[in-house]
Amino acid sequence: MIKVGIVGGTGYTGVELLRILSTHPEVKLTAITARSDAGLPVADMFPSLRGIVDLAFTSPEETDLTGCDVVFFATPHGVAMSHARKLLAAGVRIIDLAADFRLKDTAEFEKWYGMPHACPDILQEAVYGLVEVNREAIRKARVIGLPGCYPTSVQLGLAPLLGHGKPLVNESMLIADCKSGVSGAGRRASVGSLFAESSDNFHAYGVKGHRHLPEIVQGLKAITGNTREIGLTFVPHLTPMIRGIHSTLYATLRPEASGIDFQSLYEDYYRNDPFVDVLPAGSHPETRSVRASNYLRIAVHRPGNGNTLVILVVEDNLVKGAAGQGVQCLNLMCGLDETTGLKQVPVLP
Amino acid sequence: MIKVGIVGGTGYTGVELLRILSTHPEVKLTAITARSDAGLPVADMFPSLRGIVDLAFTSPEETDLTGCDVVFFATPHGVAMSHARKLLAAGVRIIDLAADFRLKDTAEFEKWYGMPHACPDILQEAVYGLVEVNREAIRKARVIGLPGCYPTSVQLGLAPLLGHGKPLVNESMLIADCKSGVSGAGRRASVGSLFAESSDNFHAYGVKGHRHLPEIVQGLKAITGNTREIGLTFVPHLTPMIRGIHSTLYATLRPEASGIDFQSLYEDYYRNDPFVDVLPAGSHPETRSVRASNYLRIAVHRPGNGNTLVILVVEDNLVKGAAGQGVQCLNLMCGLDETTGLKQVPVLP
Amino acid sequence: MIKVGIVGGTGYTGVELLRILSTHPEVKLTAITARSDAGLPVADMFPSLRGIVDLAFTSPEETDLTGCDVVFFATPHGVAMSHARKLLAAGVRIIDLAADFRLKDTAEFEKWYGMPHACPDILQEAVYGLVEVNREAIRKARVIGLPGCYPTSVQLGLAPLLGHGKPLVNESMLIADCKSGVSGAGRRASVGSLFAESSDNFHAYGVKGHRHLPEIVQGLKAITGNTREIGLTFVPHLTPMIRGIHSTLYATLRPEASGIDFQSLYEDYYRNDPFVDVLPAGSHPETRSVRASNYLRIAVHRPGNGNTLVILVVEDNLVKGAAGQGVQCLNLMCGLDETTGLKQVPVLP
Amino acid sequence: MIKVGIVGGTGYTGVELLRILSTHPEVKLTAITARSDAGLPVADMFPSLRGIVDLAFTSPEETDLTGCDVVFFATPHGVAMSHARKLLAAGVRIIDLAADFRLKDTAEFEKWYGMPHACPDILQEAVYGLVEVNREAIRKARVIGLPGCYPTSVQLGLAPLLGHGKPLVNESMLIADCKSGVSGAGRRASVGSLFAESSDNFHAYGVKGHRHLPEIVQGLKAITGNTREIGLTFVPHLTPMIRGIHSTLYATLRPEASGIDFQSLYEDYYRNDPFVDVLPAGSHPETRSVRASNYLRIAVHRPGNGNTLVILVVEDNLVKGAAGQGVQCLNLMCGLDETTGLKQVPVLP
Repeated sequence: MIKVGIVGGTGYTGVELLRILSTHPEVKLTAITARSDAGLPVADMFPSLRGIVDLAFTSPEETDLTGCDVVFFATPHGVAMSHARKLLAAGVRIIDLAADFRLKDTAEFEKWYGMPHACPDILQEAVYGLVEVNREAIRKARVIGLPGCYPTSVQLGLAPLLGHGKPLVNESMLIADCKSGVSGAGRRASVGSLFAESSDNFHAYGVKGHRHLPEIVQGLKAITGNTREIGLTFVPHLTPMIRGIHSTLYATLRPEASGIDFQSLYEDYYRNDPFVDVLPAGSHPETRSVRASNYLRIAVHRPGNGNTLVILVVEDNLVKGAAGQGVQCLNLMCGLDETTGLKQVPVLP
Repeated sequence: MIKVGIVGGTGYTGVELLRILSTHPEVKLTAITARSDAGLPVADMFPSLRGIVDLAFTSPEETDLTGCDVVFFATPHGVAMSHARKLLAAGVRIIDLAADFRLKDTAEFEKWYGMPHACPDILQEAVYGLVEVNREAIRKARVIGLPGCYPTSVQLGLAPLLGHGKPLVNESMLIADCKSGVSGAGRRASVGSLFAESSDNFHAYGVKGHRHLPEIVQGLKAITGNTREIGLTFVPHLTPMIRGIHSTLYATLRPEASGIDFQSLYEDYYRNDPFVDVLPAGSHPETRSVRASNYLRIAVHRPGNGNTLVILVVEDNLVKGAAGQGVQCLNLMCGLDETTGLKQVPVLP
Repeated sequence: MIKVGIVGGTGYTGVELLRILSTHPEVKLTAITARSDAGLPVADMFPSLRGIVDLAFTSPEETDLTGCDVVFFATPHGVAMSHARKLLAAGVRIIDLAADFRLKDTAEFEKWYGMPHACPDILQEAVYGLVEVNREAIRKARVIGLPGCYPTSVQLGLAPLLGHGKPLVNESMLIADCKSGVSGAGRRASVGSLFAESSDNFHAYGVKGHRHLPEIVQGLKAITGNTREIGLTFVPHLTPMIRGIHSTLYATLRPEASGIDFQSLYEDYYRNDPFVDVLPAGSHPETRSVRASNYLRIAVHRPGNGNTLVILVVEDNLVKGAAGQGVQCLNLMCGLDETTGLKQVPVLP
Repeated sequence: MIKVGIVGGTGYTGVELLRILSTHPEVKLTAITARSDAGLPVADMFPSLRGIVDLAFTSPEETDLTGCDVVFFATPHGVAMSHARKLLAAGVRIIDLAADFRLKDTAEFEKWYGMPHACPDILQEAVYGLVEVNREAIRKARVIGLPGCYPTSVQLGLAPLLGHGKPLVNESMLIADCKSGVSGAGRRASVGSLFAESSDNFHAYGVKGHRHLPEIVQGLKAITGNTREIGLTFVPHLTPMIRGIHSTLYATLRPEASGIDFQSLYEDYYRNDPFVDVLPAGSHPETRSVRASNYLRIAVHRPGNGNTLVILVVEDNLVKGAAGQGVQCLNLMCGLDETTGLKQVPVLP
């Protein structure tokens, strides 16, 4: 059994990790830390786990995680990087669900997250945990910087276009119009995330700039083999649902790509990826079709056979956009089948 | 492997059966019928099942179910009873999620469901599938009349009181104030169940009389060993959520029961039931704590140590209130552990 | 024009007062205070009021309210009573939307609100602003303790029974099963009121004891002319909608009341009340039928012609349950028609 | 008083007309027809109107509308055009909330609505009721084809750009990513609009082609003075809220427009329009900020000062997107102030 620890188990990605890992056949949960709730049985905070998770939260200071095989950080930005060196030295592998190991450029990290990076050397070693793009590197990684929820959907939605051998679209004029459920804002008390504020309401935010923009741009550029610059307009919106991200992506075809069969291109690209599902032509994926599961579904449209491609992508932001992708990485890092413990069927309705 | 057929797979209890049975380790789905959608792949109607359920719907007339071990009816009232005799003759066991085999009194059935009963002899044989009350009879049953969603929560909420050796409460003045998510109304197009009608809205219905009332009364009376008459005021309400039932039950203590420790009474009553969870004293169960799972949670209150007991019960109406309890019965009927294939962790948030 | 000030304009009852008063033909808003947002234009916090309310929030310390005719307190408990004496001395009348002037028994106030009462003499003078019960006293009042949202619906739902000349029901065994939208919890950041916590979820709270219980009991007793003791079981629930309270009330008939026509009793009781609407027999009021309006609708049921009455009551918790009833009091206190400025049509859907 | 009739009063635009017109100071409602509900009091179907609208629905065949000054059609497509000639002959003016008088090209109409046009001559006379663009023509119109909900938001969002004297953006590559509440689908029983289908869910639809696309293109082209061709990618999405449309519009700047102050451009364009509100730079409008009101709010963004403009537009689809804009037209046609009876304050929360 793989001994797993979780640092920061009281947020939504934490409880989602617990939901998935508690039934993972090869994992033994050994510790869950939570500074302000140390001593509290996990199931007292999350009654959904009564009889399923018997652990109590422990104080991070008094918890020795060096005996774990893998430690997840489901913490605010800045925590994982402060613990990484010690854990790595003890042979523990790290999967960070926050942003500490995403942006390779430490200046960019500091600009968007407002703190210097604590361990640039480890950052350079870290592997970006976008499985369908980086699978082989993840197998060998000691540190995973797990993609954000928006970046996962945008990158996987555009990867078949940008990862193609020849340029297909105008990479300098990409648009990602993304809609997220409110759980993406986390389990922090804030007025904007109150039911009475965000129910029966819809709005954009962060149009001027959002932390996920540089991450997506870095990732898309990497997908082109760093051969092309990326110009992306990214507009996130808050939508009144708990879980789910729907990304609507717009790309302008290059004239030389006009004859391509994009449906086939996408199907071929993801043929061997168990969690990415390219829907039949003409489909409109629904977020609920992946609710509480690790699947991500994509539909490719070319309205009026014109030169604008419209790519529709849905994922559960807490699963494929966070905890599930983390477990997918864990499986790869531990030599397991990628789908182990991740076959939860989406909950519909 | 147990060969299972489903008659009527296009409603919410149907797709929920598919979600659960598709990962049940001892079950092989062999047929799913749907009159108006024959020929359609199941996953085309429910994309959540893409790659998980490969069957297509078939026409009920052209589908031979006599090779099944067990057949579920997730159909409107009246269908199961018209097929029961033939299937039983072929050695197939039946689990009906509709009302054909619930009410033992055929006059009551006819009054509430507007049709004569097609097979009163089979009705008499049928076992009411409320597992925690009828477990042993279910093991040996050929026909199961599965409880309705409201009746499951109300009966399990009151069973420890009414099943006690001595009378504890005034059985003639029970109140069940029940709140259900909208999926309880089924996947039928109807104005009242539209999002724009039922969102941001709350109302009671059926106060004058509801089909579940005679079923609950029959069940509660049976729980008393048919020793006492039941007087129940049952008020169902529609609440703007997809899944979940919350039943708030009120019972007046008899003076001689005043000294009883009701928390212990409930804990003892359900000590060996894997899916019924009696919460610690003072708790308020949330419907989401059982979302998409077969658990039912109960809290017992006695405000001000007075003579009114308040019992709070939550379940997922589509799981413990329908498909999940059906699979629980299947497990018992087939000699499996009751929890086989039913250990889905509740989805929170 | 009546000069009106609002103390504490940043909560939901505050913005609702602004919505109503901004179009009230006889009112001039002169000041809106908000300690932590002093200087901020009201419409910057609530864009719904752009072009409608031109005032900015001011600091309570630097705002002279003594020139107002009436001041509303839409503040936490404890604020109104600390300002009352000074304002009254200046001839300003007070309408408190919090609890400072509701409970006549200062020991009860201290028990439930955790602070001593600052001005018991003014408390004794204060009039409980339940218009349909206390209309004449309100006309002459200097200080109004406005009823809570739950208490308004429960008291108006039971008043025709308890205010009758002869005892009709068992007053010691009343039950109020109440369901509130999440705006009732206020515009305070709290985890429990987050969208991701309270959407698609339903639960009871405060079964052990809730601040509104003593208020309701006091009010019901007063409605009986203080001739009878009240025994009430009050169970509030949180329901995933923004606005609206649905109270389901249960009362046991006394044998001598069995022949009464309760439909007529209710219709007669409220014949002259413009905001209370007794629905036709057999109705089920919906909370949305009063959304964003000052109406309260009631339906009276007697299932099976038995001895349990079921009263269904709906109101908008922010209007008839708070700001709207406050303006109704204002109108009466200022000699206006009770409906002035309160004729907003409910918003459906 | 202006005598007004409504044909088809049972849908959401119908009841919204009733909500607005019932308090309009210059209007007298004289008839409301509804084929299948003739005889039913309006307030029996919509209890929100109890005591407010005293009319009953009447049969369209037996209702003489020729005595009206203005008749609204809140009917399915095809109804208004079959009644138009007779009403016009009687001197009645017509405001059609459906599509009969929107598309000037009858071939386009037939293609998208599947029926030949019944009165092309009247169609040519009809004025497109987009007030802020066609105000003067509306004043003199006998027939109004009221814009669809999406088209209103998209056209008003782009009008300052496309109506400018000089070309500012690439008109052949416009993108409208629109999100609508479920009431936009109407009050028809359909599975896709059920609460259990559309709650906690988000998806696009009609990407291949939507009826509003040719209407928007026609309108935008007209705004350019028919000087330029329009290329628009229009992707509508269904979002789990009752009311509201949020349109996120993307336009690529022409190099020569790079120096323009777009905030000022928008503010100037709408300076005299009482219902269009250009928010301060950097804002993100929320749909709830216009809920149940006739306002439309716009924010203009130019992320990173690049060459992509992002325009955010919110409206209430049933008010400014339908009934409210209809009343705005009525006011203009009858020589009233445009805002008469339309000053309802948005309902927030």
